[in-house]
Amino acid sequence: MGMKAYRSIQGLPEGIDLAIIILPAKSNIQAIRECAARGIGAIVLAAGGFAEVDREGEVLQEELLKAIAETGVRVIGPNTSGHTSTPHNFTSSFFPLGKIPRGNISYIAQTGNFATHTMRYIITGENFGVARVVGLGNKVDVDESEILEYYAGDPETKAIFVYLESFKRPRCFLDIACEVTRTKPVIFLKGGGTAEGAQAAVAHTAALASDERVIDGALKQAGITRVYKYSHLFLAAKALAVMPLPRGNRVSFLAPSGAMLVILTDLCRQRWGLEVPALEEPTRQRLQEISPPYIRMRNPVDIWPSAIVHGAEFAYREGMEAILKDTNIDAVVPILMLTDDTGVPPLDFIVELATRYPEKPIYVSFSGEKKHMEAAKAFLEPRGVPTFPLIEEPFEVLSILARSRQAMERP
Amino acid sequence: MGMKAYRSIQGLPEGIDLAIIILPAKSNIQAIRECAARGIGAIVLAAGGFAEVDREGEVLQEELLKAIAETGVRVIGPNTSGHTSTPHNFTSSFFPLGKIPRGNISYIAQTGNFATHTMRYIITGENFGVARVVGLGNKVDVDESEILEYYAGDPETKAIFVYLESFKRPRCFLDIACEVTRTKPVIFLKGGGTAEGAQAAVAHTAALASDERVIDGALKQAGITRVYKYSHLFLAAKALAVMPLPRGNRVSFLAPSGAMLVILTDLCRQRWGLEVPALEEPTRQRLQEISPPYIRMRNPVDIWPSAIVHGAEFAYREGMEAILKDTNIDAVVPILMLTDDTGVPPLDFIVELATRYPEKPIYVSFSGEKKHMEAAKAFLEPRGVPTFPLIEEPFEVLSILARSRQAMERP
Repeated sequence: MGMKAYRSIQGLPEGIDLAIIILPAKSNIQAIRECAARGIGAIVLAAGGFAEVDREGEVLQEELLKAIAETGVRVIGPNTSGHTSTPHNFTSSFFPLGKIPRGNISYIAQTGNFATHTMRYIITGENFGVARVVGLGNKVDVDESEILEYYAGDPETKAIFVYLESFKRPRCFLDIACEVTRTKPVIFLKGGGTAEGAQAAVAHTAALASDERVIDGALKQAGITRVYKYSHLFLAAKALAVMPLPRGNRVSFLAPSGAMLVILTDLCRQRWGLEVPALEEPTRQRLQEISPPYIRMRNPVDIWPSAIVHGAEFAYREGMEAILKDTNIDAVVPILMLTDDTGVPPLDFIVELATRYPEKPIYVSFSGEKKHMEAAKAFLEPRGVPTFPLIEEPFEVLSILARSRQAMERP
Repeated sequence: MGMKAYRSIQGLPEGIDLAIIILPAKSNIQAIRECAARGIGAIVLAAGGFAEVDREGEVLQEELLKAIAETGVRVIGPNTSGHTSTPHNFTSSFFPLGKIPRGNISYIAQTGNFATHTMRYIITGENFGVARVVGLGNKVDVDESEILEYYAGDPETKAIFVYLESFKRPRCFLDIACEVTRTKPVIFLKGGGTAEGAQAAVAHTAALASDERVIDGALKQAGITRVYKYSHLFLAAKALAVMPLPRGNRVSFLAPSGAMLVILTDLCRQRWGLEVPALEEPTRQRLQEISPPYIRMRNPVDIWPSAIVHGAEFAYREGMEAILKDTNIDAVVPILMLTDDTGVPPLDFIVELATRYPEKPIYVSFSGEKKHMEAAKAFLEPRGVPTFPLIEEPFEVLSILARSRQAMERP
């Protein structure tokens, strides 16, 4: 990637370094030449109407490529919703995003959707910030490999989330990923191709299945963590934004319900690749101390009897602290019981524990009343503790991030 | 099940038919004998402290069984959070549940949690009602088979959700299920056993895997739809409460994002057992009519170009109606784009379509701003249209309910 493209992504303000062209497709080639003539070397092309629509568009796109080659400008797009850099308070998006909170998560998206309405969801529904977002569009010039390389060296970026429907230079992308995944998680959602590709996939499953296996192997080898749900692009991001990557896949959780303990243990084991290991004996003893004697405390932690005797704040605080100290455990999920009847404890203790044990992720979930769940989210998330409304979600996220850790430490 | 137990579950108010005993475990046997002496034949025992805790409790439970056999009373519990019947405005739960909305979903739960804080979540966070809820507790007398049989014949119950950790009379349960699943969905979450069982399962995977296969086969044969997530006990319920069971597994969805169309099509195909079939030609033509010509309309439906030209209300309404008429399609999922910038259409049209096409489920999901999603949920759900905040959720629910339909129509 040339210096000018770097500067464009970084949104450096001085001089005219970057042009954002929002003109009908046909006018783009002329506009590019005019920019080049004025020494503007970095251009974002918003217009659709190129190869993604029809034969005429394909011809236009070929002319575009020629103009780019002749002038030497660097281009993001066309058919892109733009790029964003919060450290520079910069966006080239035509979509009125509002103030995007600055943070450490960066996205590469081969879809306009991500940089627009999904970003609006993240801004309004979650409490984490982003560093950079690039909508690739038709990627006639700047592609996912260049962006990935930039994010790899970007001190603002802690974790990289990628949505792609195709690879422009697969080998190059995988080579870069192979390096960056040693230090930063790369979490990847692969679309089935274009809408046509998805249609084709429905008709030709065997072909897809085979390609899928090849892709899967290559991604794994490059240390890339694959996800399959669109929602995981922001659920895993919210966990990573404020918490460390877990050291491994060994989880302990505290729940106010035996059924939840059983079901979640089943799922950890059978579906999520997570271990629910035995606690160290001092941990177990501490849990036993705070609990009525008729419960034999172990992992997962049946915390409610202790909460009944000592109050929920004491029980969860002491239980969580014991577990956070346990070297058998990589992450802690407290499932808080929040109802008017059982009482809602002040939750500062969770923020405090997160501060005192910064090496272990804490993901919070809930059982009980909606209003208290919303209030707990509004309190905890801006203070650095992610919350998840459904009890399965923290484990799905942990499952993803434990794989990222495994990839990071691969030989 | 005897008449008195039936009456107890139905909560018939006249006379003293039912006693709710909330006394320490040791006092329960004496209390049962006193009830029997006064002609009270149906009893709920709330106390824990029996076989679930220790050897002493086991002895107590044996004495309890003897007292039940000698007196002929029918007992729910011990160690139960009680039972609820909204048609009779009745609950024996000691947990202050508040007003439970009346509805057509009935639960059998071998956990106190469900009838207490999960019920509080349902009441405060969702907009569907329940008919009956029975917390089985230690089920020394009344068990899941009797409750299932009662729900089978219960005109208030449209669908049955079950959480069990063990079967008291497996053969009996499966025989009853085999019948009822011809007319009502039975959706079943099986816990790994007691906490001890779950622990054992971690240590002895092979044994578990083998048992699991046997259980899985038996449940399938009985037409029971198995689920694996606790959250699905209320997410599938909210869909079934207001919408019909889908006729099959063929879905059409409308999304404002190509990436969502691609990802969801991948998941339908690869993970959820759902088909995204071609639309009938008249449907396709109608979609093409309302769309700009550069998009070739098909299933799944790329609705946003039409929304840009005609407005979101027109595009979604006309698109959904065309699909609702299509005999290739069993269920419709509109993913609404709701942002300040793109505008939020009035959503009456969805309620109206649901009324005019009552044979096909409509599940709504969203992309965009949290406040609009919350408002759409608050508007649509009391009017009979379920909503799901994450785009994958309606499909997961559809996947469960399509299996229920398949079970219902098995030979």
